[in-house]
Amino acid sequence: MLNKLFAPKSIAIVGASNKKGKVGAVITDNILKLGYGGKVYLVNPSYKLLKLKRCYSSISAIKKDVDVAVISLPSKFVLDVVRESCHLVKNFVIISAGFSEIGEEGAKREKELAKLASEKGLNILGPNCLGFIVPGLKLNASFAGGMPKAGNIAFISQSGALAVALMDRAKQEHISFSNIVSVGNKMQLAEAQLLEYLAKDKETKVIGMYLEGIKDGAKFIEVAKKVSKIKPIVILKAGKTEKSQKAISSHTGALAGSDDIIDIAFDEAGIIRAADLEEFFDLLTLISFTDAPKNEKVAVITNAGGAGVLTTDAFKGKGIVLADLSKKIKEEIKSVLPDEASAENPIDLLGDAGEDRYGNVFKILNTKNFGSIISVLTPQEQTPVEKITSIIIGNKNKHSSLAMTIFIGGERISKSLLELKKNSIPNFSNPDSAINVLDKYYKWSVFKKKKEQILKSNLKVSRKKEVAKIINKAIAENRGALFFSEAAQVMNKYGINPVDCFDVFPELKVPKIKEFPVVLKVDSDKVLHKSDKQALILNIKTQDDLEKAAEKLRVDFPTERFVIQPMHSKHAEIILGIKRDDIFGPVIVYGLGGIYTEVFKMVNFIIPPMSKEDIEKQLLKSKIGFLFSGVRGQKVCDISEFVNIIVGLMEFAMENDNLREFDINPLFIYNDGTRAEAVDIKIIL
Amino acid sequence: MLNKLFAPKSIAIVGASNKKGKVGAVITDNILKLGYGGKVYLVNPSYKLLKLKRCYSSISAIKKDVDVAVISLPSKFVLDVVRESCHLVKNFVIISAGFSEIGEEGAKREKELAKLASEKGLNILGPNCLGFIVPGLKLNASFAGGMPKAGNIAFISQSGALAVALMDRAKQEHISFSNIVSVGNKMQLAEAQLLEYLAKDKETKVIGMYLEGIKDGAKFIEVAKKVSKIKPIVILKAGKTEKSQKAISSHTGALAGSDDIIDIAFDEAGIIRAADLEEFFDLLTLISFTDAPKNEKVAVITNAGGAGVLTTDAFKGKGIVLADLSKKIKEEIKSVLPDEASAENPIDLLGDAGEDRYGNVFKILNTKNFGSIISVLTPQEQTPVEKITSIIIGNKNKHSSLAMTIFIGGERISKSLLELKKNSIPNFSNPDSAINVLDKYYKWSVFKKKKEQILKSNLKVSRKKEVAKIINKAIAENRGALFFSEAAQVMNKYGINPVDCFDVFPELKVPKIKEFPVVLKVDSDKVLHKSDKQALILNIKTQDDLEKAAEKLRVDFPTERFVIQPMHSKHAEIILGIKRDDIFGPVIVYGLGGIYTEVFKMVNFIIPPMSKEDIEKQLLKSKIGFLFSGVRGQKVCDISEFVNIIVGLMEFAMENDNLREFDINPLFIYNDGTRAEAVDIKIIL
Repeated sequence: MLNKLFAPKSIAIVGASNKKGKVGAVITDNILKLGYGGKVYLVNPSYKLLKLKRCYSSISAIKKDVDVAVISLPSKFVLDVVRESCHLVKNFVIISAGFSEIGEEGAKREKELAKLASEKGLNILGPNCLGFIVPGLKLNASFAGGMPKAGNIAFISQSGALAVALMDRAKQEHISFSNIVSVGNKMQLAEAQLLEYLAKDKETKVIGMYLEGIKDGAKFIEVAKKVSKIKPIVILKAGKTEKSQKAISSHTGALAGSDDIIDIAFDEAGIIRAADLEEFFDLLTLISFTDAPKNEKVAVITNAGGAGVLTTDAFKGKGIVLADLSKKIKEEIKSVLPDEASAENPIDLLGDAGEDRYGNVFKILNTKNFGSIISVLTPQEQTPVEKITSIIIGNKNKHSSLAMTIFIGGERISKSLLELKKNSIPNFSNPDSAINVLDKYYKWSVFKKKKEQILKSNLKVSRKKEVAKIINKAIAENRGALFFSEAAQVMNKYGINPVDCFDVFPELKVPKIKEFPVVLKVDSDKVLHKSDKQALILNIKTQDDLEKAAEKLRVDFPTERFVIQPMHSKHAEIILGIKRDDIFGPVIVYGLGGIYTEVFKMVNFIIPPMSKEDIEKQLLKSKIGFLFSGVRGQKVCDISEFVNIIVGLMEFAMENDNLREFDINPLFIYNDGTRAEAVDIKIIL
Repeated sequence: MLNKLFAPKSIAIVGASNKKGKVGAVITDNILKLGYGGKVYLVNPSYKLLKLKRCYSSISAIKKDVDVAVISLPSKFVLDVVRESCHLVKNFVIISAGFSEIGEEGAKREKELAKLASEKGLNILGPNCLGFIVPGLKLNASFAGGMPKAGNIAFISQSGALAVALMDRAKQEHISFSNIVSVGNKMQLAEAQLLEYLAKDKETKVIGMYLEGIKDGAKFIEVAKKVSKIKPIVILKAGKTEKSQKAISSHTGALAGSDDIIDIAFDEAGIIRAADLEEFFDLLTLISFTDAPKNEKVAVITNAGGAGVLTTDAFKGKGIVLADLSKKIKEEIKSVLPDEASAENPIDLLGDAGEDRYGNVFKILNTKNFGSIISVLTPQEQTPVEKITSIIIGNKNKHSSLAMTIFIGGERISKSLLELKKNSIPNFSNPDSAINVLDKYYKWSVFKKKKEQILKSNLKVSRKKEVAKIINKAIAENRGALFFSEAAQVMNKYGINPVDCFDVFPELKVPKIKEFPVVLKVDSDKVLHKSDKQALILNIKTQDDLEKAAEKLRVDFPTERFVIQPMHSKHAEIILGIKRDDIFGPVIVYGLGGIYTEVFKMVNFIIPPMSKEDIEKQLLKSKIGFLFSGVRGQKVCDISEFVNIIVGLMEFAMENDNLREFDINPLFIYNDGTRAEAVDIKIIL
């Protein structure tokens, strides 16, 4: 659907100009002079002739097919131009600033533009963007200068300046692009639409994005999950701190979400998140240059012990591993190396190694099934750097392992670095960076291979109606929250087991209880934080004590309902909740309860929907994973029960999107077969 | 004391040679041909004349003062040469390999050499090293090629190859050295001795070290703490993982310690630890180029919103901060910028900013007290990169703020990057790296300014004797551990409060207890893990129940002593212990007890000795800091009490260095004024 936009046969430049320094003039030059082969129409009512070409007074005056109109006009004229030409042109690139990023007036203008686009079925890139570049077509429809090399990286940027900076750096680093797209305010064409297009684009091998905000997070994650199965998506997401969130909202009016949730969302969608700009560039280079490693096993060859040690360190906590070498292979390696060399991985060829040692060891390694072979080198006095480089390049196609280098040095390796780049062998001078990006690429390949679990949605209209009835009763009674017994009823419908309870009404006597100890609590929308307000009495052991406790509580809470619950000795306290995230909608929050929740931030997130299999995997690697995998010889808790609780919460969140707040705190879980119990449930209306 | 070694007036090269490819020949050339102005004597009995110079048969044949002898001979000859000449020469550089790094035979040779050195008062660098280079003297006494630029970085490397690689890179990056020293096996001259020398060396501004192992950790930390008060020490410490520890022991025979303890040790000594090779290089560059920021406040100027957002992100969790700008200064800034520009920090000059905007904003910022001013730039089409660079360079000396740049790009900024380097303005292309290294430099400056606390040692011979008596009794009785009541007695001597206890002897009746509930435990060196062996019964509420519990335990443990302790409801469970670290000696381990210790690794370390003030600071920033600083409105625990417990443990550790294992697990701490109680104490002999 975006083919005509990004691979147009004809372009109209509205606001074409020849005035030096004007954006319209830069765009005109870029489209006319850098080799684009399609038709170009200049539009500007002030000229008859421009750059020796006919200049039209309007798009309608062209009377020929126009695939894309690139508009560079003061913002107040943009809407009229689009309105008057949208029966002729369906694709627009709006360079002009002066929309939602400048405040109310601009936002109004943008809203009208969006309405028009949706009514007329238009595709609009921008407004407030740099434009786009397709090096394969020699098409630069932007006001950034130059023409990058045609290649396989698609780069989508929410910052025009960063796109320019990366293009400049790319030239130096011999990396090359299929598309460069500046999305500006993302009024209509945002991350999701571009991902869908680029997933199908044959030139594109990897999609890199610099994002500040994310538009329509749920849709974005849904699309990204599919696209990640086809090609890797690498994202540098800015806006981690509150301060930078402020900087963003004054920048492109984007809305930044909680960074932890973004981490989880990306993880669920198989997106590779770059920690910083350097890693972003490293990841794009690596993926552009080479296919993902076919397994986690890595062999490292080095001519410097110290560099080998640093490389070994870098594997700490990674999914890729320094492969254990078999006795047989070690003997083979020893047979081609001097005695003092080490045949352990990293294989230490010693400081005086020439190209022959690298070559001989390659021959042995090539016969084995390593996912990656990394050649480490420092330029000793006697090191024939260029000869070794030739051997590495020559060896690259002799096996299916990923080939990578860690050359550490300066002048003495610079010529070789260039050769490596020309031959698409990624080099990283910092061992930690090398291993880190290789690990991320490998993890993506695991995601790609993973079978998609089928999501069985279990939403029920009848249940939704029953819950609404309970909630409406509370609203009618002017309450801000459900009573415990009501909340318990709701939870039961979603397969979540509330603790037993006995209501105590203000005017009535305390019921006779059979089993002790119990807890007595105030049950009221006015007392949501019970411990803080001394609104509960723990560990009551007899009926007599219970009655005394009720009398005592009654003094401070004369008109409230109370609730009696049995007191169990739990194995662990869990907190569960639903956070409505501005970007991703309802997010399930779960973690260790009690004091540790807040002190150690022992919470994780799940963004619905997710299959049971995936929930189980997430739980096991979460901060409460130890409860289900055993620790210190303790019996484990039932993970399938906890998975069902999460599923229940997902359904609850999706069926009831009108609740203000919801949490279960604590949920007691056991490791003796007892069912988990929701001890306190807040449903706030 | 090492002046004669590193700034010699005369050098003898033992093993001088002219055979191409031989190490001795490379060293001979390096010393003779790179400009060294002192006297050089060649020693090799095979020649009369070498390189047109007289060649001596031995050092004693020289008959002149020799400050240093550089020895490059097969390892078996080294000892004899040193022995025969040590009445004439006191400083040796032993290049030769074939010592402790090759196993037993070499280790024996090294031991003899060390003995000789200590008997004769020699200084020996190496063996198994690259040598050293002093660019200021044009002295290259190593077999690495070339002569680096003379500057202010001293680089000490345990890996010769990494030294070579860094020198090569340094050439490209315009950074320069006062000393480069390869320490090899660190037989005698190790980290501590070199630090002491370099601390006094006037040319050296920053000391960088690549270390795999640390020799004599306690001495090293003691020296480093003092040197860090004078100049910064930056260390890249390899050997983080078990695998790389293996690689090290086959590499230079060094002993790697637990990485967490190294972190703490470096922190205590004010050492800046580099996370990886790139950061190491970045830190050396930054410190070499500029003085530390005088305060934590940073102002950022940018011509690219996106780059500003990334820079803002990088401040997350740092000690340096993006300074809040006063209303007045914001108005001043606004007055010199276009309307759409932002006067918030980062100050956004907009994409079309020329040198004037940078200059005008500098003028305003220069009048304020910022610790650092960072100029961010991406090369837009209209950006006059070189003119802006000149403004930044010109402004550098007009104020006392640290000047730093984040230029992001490639070809279009390369000329300017060179200019910045020439003018000692550090540039980092990755915002996260820039802010990270600046933060580390700032933190060092805080350490430097911090007043040294006086350590009051409180070791007591009489107490040590009393403890020895208790221990000797247990040994005489053939026990592997103290009984609880004995351990309690010991702890009392160090101001640590054990929980009350009543002994129950196998042949005697259970004593009458007044207050319940209590706990009954087996008290035996054979049952050290009581929960695992069902050797304790909790929550006993009556004398009757206590007697039954004792009968029950008696079945499984017929001949052991039991102990009765009151059962309190604690506020938190703490674990305390002493770990004997191979590098640093006794280390106090403390953390949250119970299941969380192991699940969340909630432990921290303190390496004695440390002042009370510093212990308090460490506690507050430790993982259990929340207990003393309050959380969720809870009452805090008494930190001074806990400081005294740590002090007691330090004294205990120092007075009793012969114990196999020691821990208190749990220590109950309270927040209601009750004294902390050691509930279980293991003193294992």
